Amino acid sequence: MTAQTPIQESPEDLVARIAITAREAQRQLTRLSDAEKAQALRAAAAAIRAAEADILAANDRDVTAGEAAGLTGASLDRLRLDPQRLAGIADAVEHVARLPDPVGHVIDSSTPANGLALSRVRVPIGLIGIIYESRPNVTADAAALCFRSGNAVLLRGGSEAVHSNRALHAAFVLGLEQCGAPADAIQLMPTQDRDAVGAMLTAAGLIDMIVPRGGKSLVARVQADARVPVLAHLDGICHTYIHSAADPAMARDIALNAKMRRTGICGAMETLLIDAHFAGAGKVLSDLLEAGCELRGDGRARAIDSRVLPASEEDWDTEYLEAILSVAVVDGLDAAIAHIDLHSSHHTDTIVTEDADAAERFLADVDSAIVMVNASSQFADGGEFGLGAEIGIATGRLHARGPVALEGLTTYKWLVRGSGQVRP
Amino acid sequence: MTAQTPIQESPEDLVARIAITAREAQRQLTRLSDAEKAQALRAAAAAIRAAEADILAANDRDVTAGEAAGLTGASLDRLRLDPQRLAGIADAVEHVARLPDPVGHVIDSSTPANGLALSRVRVPIGLIGIIYESRPNVTADAAALCFRSGNAVLLRGGSEAVHSNRALHAAFVLGLEQCGAPADAIQLMPTQDRDAVGAMLTAAGLIDMIVPRGGKSLVARVQADARVPVLAHLDGICHTYIHSAADPAMARDIALNAKMRRTGICGAMETLLIDAHFAGAGKVLSDLLEAGCELRGDGRARAIDSRVLPASEEDWDTEYLEAILSVAVVDGLDAAIAHIDLHSSHHTDTIVTEDADAAERFLADVDSAIVMVNASSQFADGGEFGLGAEIGIATGRLHARGPVALEGLTTYKWLVRGSGQVRP
Repeated sequence: MTAQTPIQESPEDLVARIAITAREAQRQLTRLSDAEKAQALRAAAAAIRAAEADILAANDRDVTAGEAAGLTGASLDRLRLDPQRLAGIADAVEHVARLPDPVGHVIDSSTPANGLALSRVRVPIGLIGIIYESRPNVTADAAALCFRSGNAVLLRGGSEAVHSNRALHAAFVLGLEQCGAPADAIQLMPTQDRDAVGAMLTAAGLIDMIVPRGGKSLVARVQADARVPVLAHLDGICHTYIHSAADPAMARDIALNAKMRRTGICGAMETLLIDAHFAGAGKVLSDLLEAGCELRGDGRARAIDSRVLPASEEDWDTEYLEAILSVAVVDGLDAAIAHIDLHSSHHTDTIVTEDADAAERFLADVDSAIVMVNASSQFADGGEFGLGAEIGIATGRLHARGPVALEGLTTYKWLVRGSGQVRP
Repeated sequence: MTAQTPIQESPEDLVARIAITAREAQRQLTRLSDAEKAQALRAAAAAIRAAEADILAANDRDVTAGEAAGLTGASLDRLRLDPQRLAGIADAVEHVARLPDPVGHVIDSSTPANGLALSRVRVPIGLIGIIYESRPNVTADAAALCFRSGNAVLLRGGSEAVHSNRALHAAFVLGLEQCGAPADAIQLMPTQDRDAVGAMLTAAGLIDMIVPRGGKSLVARVQADARVPVLAHLDGICHTYIHSAADPAMARDIALNAKMRRTGICGAMETLLIDAHFAGAGKVLSDLLEAGCELRGDGRARAIDSRVLPASEEDWDTEYLEAILSVAVVDGLDAAIAHIDLHSSHHTDTIVTEDADAAERFLADVDSAIVMVNASSQFADGGEFGLGAEIGIATGRLHARGPVALEGLTTYKWLVRGSGQVRP
């Protein structure tokens, strides 16, 4: 396992040392079979369950320190573990063990005129760096997803959760060791020094991809400073457009759910666009208001319900992540698409309509990672998409887009089988 | 078309203005059908043929200026067009028109337990920046590949080819215009100002991906400075390992072809690894020497043929791109893989063997973009791989790897078709 950092070691040397150890272990990991990787993950889950007392005691230290430091209710809640939550973490590791292994999957194959037998085969990316904030479950989730897909991982969690993360990491790697699996593939940064994050971001050639999981300022710093490729999502400014041909009851239910089920997730609706020809607007707005949602609208939205507050220009570009919603009335499909194009963060945008042509045009013309018809944007989630788990939701355009799970943690190589061919 | 740059415009403003114009045109391009895009490309090819006199005259200006500036034979040859080469450029555009359109392809689809119908559908990336050096054919090749895959492109060629590139670009967009296709999707940087390259590299949000095509210093600058994702290949330090169980005649033919067919391409062999138990080493080395190749070897290679010069440590990490080859004798498959792991640029590495187990282990354990058995590494090429054409060969690990053609110029979005689902 990772030794204590000598005082003299620079952050760059520290990251290089850990990365080289992790990459060595990753090569051994690539030699494990699917069944061996799954078995090692089940052992990691069992070790987490067995270490319940230690992990909860470590978490208590973090929570106590957090309270002393004045953390608010929501932050403390993200940090806190209890027996049920810890069992959920172990369950999630076991769930990842059951997911199909993407490594070795043949994407396609062909035999061009030169007679070479070509195939593209999925392989791990290598060493993934995960930089995250207060949720300790990320330690186990990310470790499990990276291990399942044959990658090494360097985890760097937030200071608030340092003891919880160390205890979870120690249990996870103990489980791997008990199976003879290459536990050094799962590394936890041994220091909370912020310079070590900078060293991760610039470790091109040592770390193959960085995944930031956290708030806007973390993701923005990672995107600004990284020389290593980054798989990030920034804001989730998600729109729901209620088309003129929407079913009023469905539109009302989807709007309420998309906004109010959980307001703090990136798939929550932040702007509601109502077609000027949709008849049920009054009911949708009044039900949102009565559910406790603050509405900020343009003049036409305020004309529908006088309780709607005036929206500023900034509101159309704001991810509230709370019970606040901006509302605009638009003249038809093109105007809705134009508004989305201008203001969406291209995470998840939705149309509610019974008109199949309008639905298909919305699907074709809205260029977001996820485009939905007649569903709540709160479904934007790797688990709901059948991926089993997710490492994040990518709003960039390269490599992977939308919910990223095991496949997004792989790349491919070309295998070429010849019989002595030389090129003319 | 692109206007002349006002003197006061900053490089950043220039790039932003062109990018916004190109992105607008790209949205129109996404509305064209497969057949319309193909027809527009045939018109571009026809316009290139029709402009032969103009293009060759422009090319003459570049060649004359290059001669005056003291360009060497190989550089001048890369720059020079003649009727046959120009016909080849037009042919290549027509060839791209015949390639299957990747846009709209459904990668996969599923219906998880929530009843949502999910599919992942290929869409263009958006605006691609291509930064290249003296070969004017890149202007038409890159424009055709980007257009075929629904992308806009901002081309920035080398100063040596400025008149050739302008003439080719003018013909290409004239052909598109004649079809009513959105010609503004194909932009050529109107200035050779180097600061404009810097502005392209930092135009995150305006340019979606940069592809550098050129020598090491260009690619290194792009990778160091870019804030936009880069699809690059650096060196092609390609290895051929002749295993103990190689067929001697096949090994000799593959080694000769991999090194000597064309020494200046990235798929050319740069290091030959000979198994200590391979019986035909003397013949391979003497045939390479007699074909005019300088050999630089370790002590055991020099013991096979005294004409082998001593290799320095640097030789194992050198991409010669000429008739020079480093040669090492290795003890078995593991030693060969270890040498490749240490020194390969992970572009293309090859084993020659009649032993199927050794071949499969080499394919599994060598982590390069292309891994070959019993074939010349000179086949590492999008055309030879049946992709029809290539925008480059990627040695990075994310998004696309190996020869990149139309599919590598696309991303995907998730389409979700519901029937009123809300998330519990």
